[in-house]
Amino acid sequence: MAGPVQSIERAAAILRLLARGSGRLSLGEVATSLGLAKGTAHGILRTLQSVDFVEQDRATGKYQLGAALLHLGTSYLDINELRSRSINWADALAARSGEAVRLGVPLEGKVLIVHHVFRPDDTFQTLDVGSLLPLHASALGKVLLAYGATPLEPLMETEQESYTRHTLVSPQQLNRALGEVREAGWAAAIQEMMMGEADIAAPIRGQGGLVVGAVGISGAMDRLCDSKGRPQASLVGLTRDAARAISRDLGAARW
Amino acid sequence: MAGPVQSIERAAAILRLLARGSGRLSLGEVATSLGLAKGTAHGILRTLQSVDFVEQDRATGKYQLGAALLHLGTSYLDINELRSRSINWADALAARSGEAVRLGVPLEGKVLIVHHVFRPDDTFQTLDVGSLLPLHASALGKVLLAYGATPLEPLMETEQESYTRHTLVSPQQLNRALGEVREAGWAAAIQEMMMGEADIAAPIRGQGGLVVGAVGISGAMDRLCDSKGRPQASLVGLTRDAARAISRDLGAARW
Repeated sequence: MAGPVQSIERAAAILRLLARGSGRLSLGEVATSLGLAKGTAHGILRTLQSVDFVEQDRATGKYQLGAALLHLGTSYLDINELRSRSINWADALAARSGEAVRLGVPLEGKVLIVHHVFRPDDTFQTLDVGSLLPLHASALGKVLLAYGATPLEPLMETEQESYTRHTLVSPQQLNRALGEVREAGWAAAIQEMMMGEADIAAPIRGQGGLVVGAVGISGAMDRLCDSKGRPQASLVGLTRDAARAISRDLGAARW
Repeated sequence: MAGPVQSIERAAAILRLLARGSGRLSLGEVATSLGLAKGTAHGILRTLQSVDFVEQDRATGKYQLGAALLHLGTSYLDINELRSRSINWADALAARSGEAVRLGVPLEGKVLIVHHVFRPDDTFQTLDVGSLLPLHASALGKVLLAYGATPLEPLMETEQESYTRHTLVSPQQLNRALGEVREAGWAAAIQEMMMGEADIAAPIRGQGGLVVGAVGISGAMDRLCDSKGRPQASLVGLTRDAARAISRDLGAARW
């Protein structure tokens, strides 16, 4: 059994580093950030450049992510079974609920949005596909945590980032909320990431019944919630129906 | 000066392989396709899996591209200066021309679409961002070839793939057409990739004046062309204006 290949791990770390912040770093910045010798970092960067995973700015000499990654990312979406089996159900959920629909899977302790259907009106909206949401402050993330699709332990060790005064920052709060999610079979996050905004999500199960993702609607709290500030039962029902339909299409025996 | 890192080159080759065809391959298929020993391929695949660049299907054991690539691809778009400086001009070009607008850069002997504005009507359209077009059968590609943004030599060695009876397949045809592109300052491909469809494109220059990409409109031939089957002069003008505006924003001294 072969062990992990160190240079590939380092290459991946460099790419993740370039995906953060300004996205343009000098050789020295890359080497320092990852604790690598400059020569080592340079060899990896040059190789990544030769395969178009990294580009070097002519003027500044700084490195940034390369075009090949865009094509690989799109190819990931094209072959993603969860996404392809969800597209029609997500369209139907957006049409029935009148809200934006997003599909999330776990990635590196966050929620990666793999599909996004705009709210069916003519307002300006930006595509969230490829972006990352915090696990503890989104309904999609709570579903992934509650059903073990992503490890809970890291979030139980320390307080989480606070986005609004409603964000569940303490391990105790979060743990209690996840118990309620498991009890109810769905999750909501109401003004927990942004004031005035809410989302509702339900689990998607794959073959064997394990939760592999979450589907949900998101939008203005005054549309998603009733006068008492609780998620509209009809929207919860539509979201759960969509999640069940996708799970069935994925071959889940129970959903 | 460090040489290229072989394991990273092999990892990139595996990812490119998984981006083609069905997108799901067994260990044996990966090893055979790339001429690697099974143990070597397995070590690379396991490492790629540990950094979420590759996922393994539980049921079949086959490998496919991983979620981290989607996030990296989106991050590439976020930091791409060509794209960010083009967005407003592309919107304006779509509004003025009434056609879909696409922005292309060279990648691996093809045109990578890095931005796509839908035709401003309510028809069903799919997002082309991340897809690859052939250089020789698209106006975007001809611009990249004509102005040296991507090497012409590989296309001069052999006949190119024919998509329709109008595709320029022979090196002589293509070479002559590229001379005309340089003479005119813009390119068109009329029914060269698909019957009934056409595109028109113009070069985008970066700092220093080198061509770094192409912007163009695409759509039904009967809208893009006049009664003699030639590109509408007004649409050519709008496309060239947009390309010049983007070039100026990128800091090109001449455009």
